[in-house]
Amino acid sequence: MSEYPKQDHSRVKRVANRASYEEAAVHAIIDDAYVAHVGFNMDGRPFVIPMLHARVGRTLYLHASVKSRFYRLLSSGQPACVTFTHVDGLVIARSAFHHSMNYRSVVAHGTCKAVGKDEKAAALKAFTNKILPGRWEECRPIYDKEIEVTGVIAMEIETAAAKVRTGDPSDDKEDYDLPIWAGVLPIERVLKEAISDPAMKQTVALPDSVKNLYEKEG
Amino acid sequence: MSEYPKQDHSRVKRVANRASYEEAAVHAIIDDAYVAHVGFNMDGRPFVIPMLHARVGRTLYLHASVKSRFYRLLSSGQPACVTFTHVDGLVIARSAFHHSMNYRSVVAHGTCKAVGKDEKAAALKAFTNKILPGRWEECRPIYDKEIEVTGVIAMEIETAAAKVRTGDPSDDKEDYDLPIWAGVLPIERVLKEAISDPAMKQTVALPDSVKNLYEKEG
Repeated sequence: MSEYPKQDHSRVKRVANRASYEEAAVHAIIDDAYVAHVGFNMDGRPFVIPMLHARVGRTLYLHASVKSRFYRLLSSGQPACVTFTHVDGLVIARSAFHHSMNYRSVVAHGTCKAVGKDEKAAALKAFTNKILPGRWEECRPIYDKEIEVTGVIAMEIETAAAKVRTGDPSDDKEDYDLPIWAGVLPIERVLKEAISDPAMKQTVALPDSVKNLYEKEG
Repeated sequence: MSEYPKQDHSRVKRVANRASYEEAAVHAIIDDAYVAHVGFNMDGRPFVIPMLHARVGRTLYLHASVKSRFYRLLSSGQPACVTFTHVDGLVIARSAFHHSMNYRSVVAHGTCKAVGKDEKAAALKAFTNKILPGRWEECRPIYDKEIEVTGVIAMEIETAAAKVRTGDPSDDKEDYDLPIWAGVLPIERVLKEAISDPAMKQTVALPDSVKNLYEKEG
């Protein structure tokens, strides 16, 4: 089983039994997230910006405009921290102190750079198929000028840690006798019925990419 | 209408017509989020950590252990950037280039400090009632020692910008003639049926706090 290296800055110290450095665990949490929270420093100030992303192996592609401040900064070899979080449930305990959340998160560190033209085209395909697998092949083919104005940042993941909480509340032993309800309120991300663009000029059936996503998401 | 000040580091520059600095818009997005992505620098390296939060006025309370590295760092007056993001839909366009997401996000900047004992008790109540409004009053009362070991960071929001995308895809004019499906796949956060803790020693009805949340979330 392949693992990300543990370094001082990446090691989970609080409730360390919830942590994993395994590639498969880390990648599953990243791939299930539609948005990445990208942290970096600019002019000595921390920034956290939500971005579209796609992962290929240990490379995280981040989507920006070539005209944005963030693109100019990150394309020049900056360290970044990219974090992914899923809230899976509210954990309701007998004591306020033990209220919690069930969650899956990944904190990944690495160094960013801009990608060249060929890698950029591949990354743009990965972004599209990340939002909707198979969509790239259904679209109007991309123009060179569209590739030019899209900035793609690649971050090689150097270290990454997943942290996961699941299951019931953990109250103090003596509190289990109290007549107070405790449990979990599960939270799910649900895809609601597709809304066709009213500007479509002809009737077009739902494409396979959309049908497949609804089947997968149940 | 009260607004957060626009400063160079907080002003939305890309697709600026999606931005708002109004307190009401910013606060609604923050309050609807269960998790905050907190960005800061430690040893010259950016970090983004998901944390529980609660907002009171223009103060963001962030939840940590007093033993954590992050607590020690943030309690000493560090600048931070706290970001909240909701993904509301996948925007499926005729061209790969115009694929997008519908989202609501807030990027807030400020300076962090630890809170004193009295403010901490109030903040712990705010955390609990943020997860589940009214829960604090239903719980076993909190112990002083529990207040002591919980770290609470307060960040005064100095600047904040909301950014929101809604609605249909925006394709190139000539692409509207193509026989390619386009539209939006809405995403909702759904609360599934409550799971009572199997370790409860007696039958306890669902409390009002839980019933109210299910009514509110539909």
